[in-house]
Amino acid sequence: MKCKMCGETAAVSLRSCHAGFCEKCYQIYFRRQVKRGIESRNLFSRDDRILAALSGGKDSLALALELVELGYNVTGLFIDLAIPGSSAKARGITEEFCRAHGLPLIVADLGREGLPIPEVKKLLRRPVCSMCGKIKRYYFNKIAVDGGFDCLATGHNLDDEVSRLFSNTLRWDKAYLSDQGPVLEACPGFARKAKPLWRLTEFETANYAFIRNIPCHSDPCPYSGGASFGVLKNVLQKLESGMPGKKLDFYLGFLDRGREAFAKEQESKADALAPCWECGAPTSSGDICGVCRAKRTLAERRA
Amino acid sequence: MKCKMCGETAAVSLRSCHAGFCEKCYQIYFRRQVKRGIESRNLFSRDDRILAALSGGKDSLALALELVELGYNVTGLFIDLAIPGSSAKARGITEEFCRAHGLPLIVADLGREGLPIPEVKKLLRRPVCSMCGKIKRYYFNKIAVDGGFDCLATGHNLDDEVSRLFSNTLRWDKAYLSDQGPVLEACPGFARKAKPLWRLTEFETANYAFIRNIPCHSDPCPYSGGASFGVLKNVLQKLESGMPGKKLDFYLGFLDRGREAFAKEQESKADALAPCWECGAPTSSGDICGVCRAKRTLAERRA
Repeated sequence: MKCKMCGETAAVSLRSCHAGFCEKCYQIYFRRQVKRGIESRNLFSRDDRILAALSGGKDSLALALELVELGYNVTGLFIDLAIPGSSAKARGITEEFCRAHGLPLIVADLGREGLPIPEVKKLLRRPVCSMCGKIKRYYFNKIAVDGGFDCLATGHNLDDEVSRLFSNTLRWDKAYLSDQGPVLEACPGFARKAKPLWRLTEFETANYAFIRNIPCHSDPCPYSGGASFGVLKNVLQKLESGMPGKKLDFYLGFLDRGREAFAKEQESKADALAPCWECGAPTSSGDICGVCRAKRTLAERRA
Repeated sequence: MKCKMCGETAAVSLRSCHAGFCEKCYQIYFRRQVKRGIESRNLFSRDDRILAALSGGKDSLALALELVELGYNVTGLFIDLAIPGSSAKARGITEEFCRAHGLPLIVADLGREGLPIPEVKKLLRRPVCSMCGKIKRYYFNKIAVDGGFDCLATGHNLDDEVSRLFSNTLRWDKAYLSDQGPVLEACPGFARKAKPLWRLTEFETANYAFIRNIPCHSDPCPYSGGASFGVLKNVLQKLESGMPGKKLDFYLGFLDRGREAFAKEQESKADALAPCWECGAPTSSGDICGVCRAKRTLAERRA
């Protein structure tokens, strides 16, 4: 197969584009998709101070590299989950990456915050994944708001977005469907959130990370066994393989036509939030938020 | 595996129910699902005159048998597509079935109507399936309206419904999403339509037809190669196998929560229809409907 752009031997073949690319042109293709993702949906501008959530994995480091090279004003944020044998490695890779690319880095250490994930895990009977995600999103938002950043950027790719959309659609969860998309506007207590890689699949990001030689942390989380997102990603992979390009079509159709049908759910969702009595973050609990509650329980157990 | 109801050896295993049934109890299960499908969504009542569309396949004959045994006032309708080697066989099976069960049968012969499907096929460059479906639905509706029937019943099962819902959702086709469901109310020019088997999968209907020894026409249509519904059915099968019961969940969630989000599309759809200048059936074409147009083109070619 030949490169669609220069005619040299292709290194990456993309069925959704019915085309192949050589390593050099693939980087041009990738950058175009990132730029189009940012500009077509007004994710942020060059005047914005952007906080990029970095896990040490391929998606977030690919995101950071693109934003730096595109000339955006970016600061990295790493959440140290304090998981033995995993977090230190991911943190080391992220710190090294930021040093190499001159990227300022903020580290939030859940051990020091009194919320190490292994201890949180012991509080729960179900898998820790959803609580861990909640805690991470809490710190992403808190650090973005407290630090006066204009936008929090995450490395979610098209597969992440489409899995989430598919999951929300299968449940017809109108509240979640009302605000899914590559950008979520700021509102009181919440930073603006953006997903610049939303047009690119996991396969495309992995190829980019490989070609750009990004040293990344690819070990699966030791606590992630049995999460149900796997079934949906497999199902969507089967759909994409039978109908190449369908994943992006489905997501674009949702943004352009579907989402507006759920718009009225937005108001009732915002109405239900009030500040947490402890940290002030918006919560629907009526008193203290789930993160402060976990922190308090762990402190009591230690005492 | 034991029968969930009587403890005898099970003949059918249903993962979505985490249960097995013996042949006798399976028929009780099946009938309960048909009754629940009809009664929970008010499809029709015992006072209604029902026209049941029969293709000679397992779904429509299973439907007819259940409606007859449940004591509904049913008339069968067979559309003879005039496809050599296929239509005569399906017609023979349907006629024999109706004789055996004392069911009155109306036959619409597309050859006599000037619309034999083999000739319609020659008019088109694309597969004839969508036009064939349009012609069948046209006659279903026309015969139900002209004959003063209260409801047209079809043998669509849960897989048919979920495939269609999934296809409409993947395209975010809000007009189609606004009126999908097991019952479509009558409106000027349109008969009420109902799908009493909507709670039962193809697998469940096939088991029922086998156990009830319904002699049915199961050869694939000679013209159906390459239809894209196959990919979606396979994808949904993979979803159901990873998450048993998810197909029915998805459909019920749509009926109970999702569909109302698309309700306002309904009005604009009805506004766009006017009677066909030739046959009077509602059409969005502005002059004559697609079926009359095909009929006219074929007549001109013959002349």
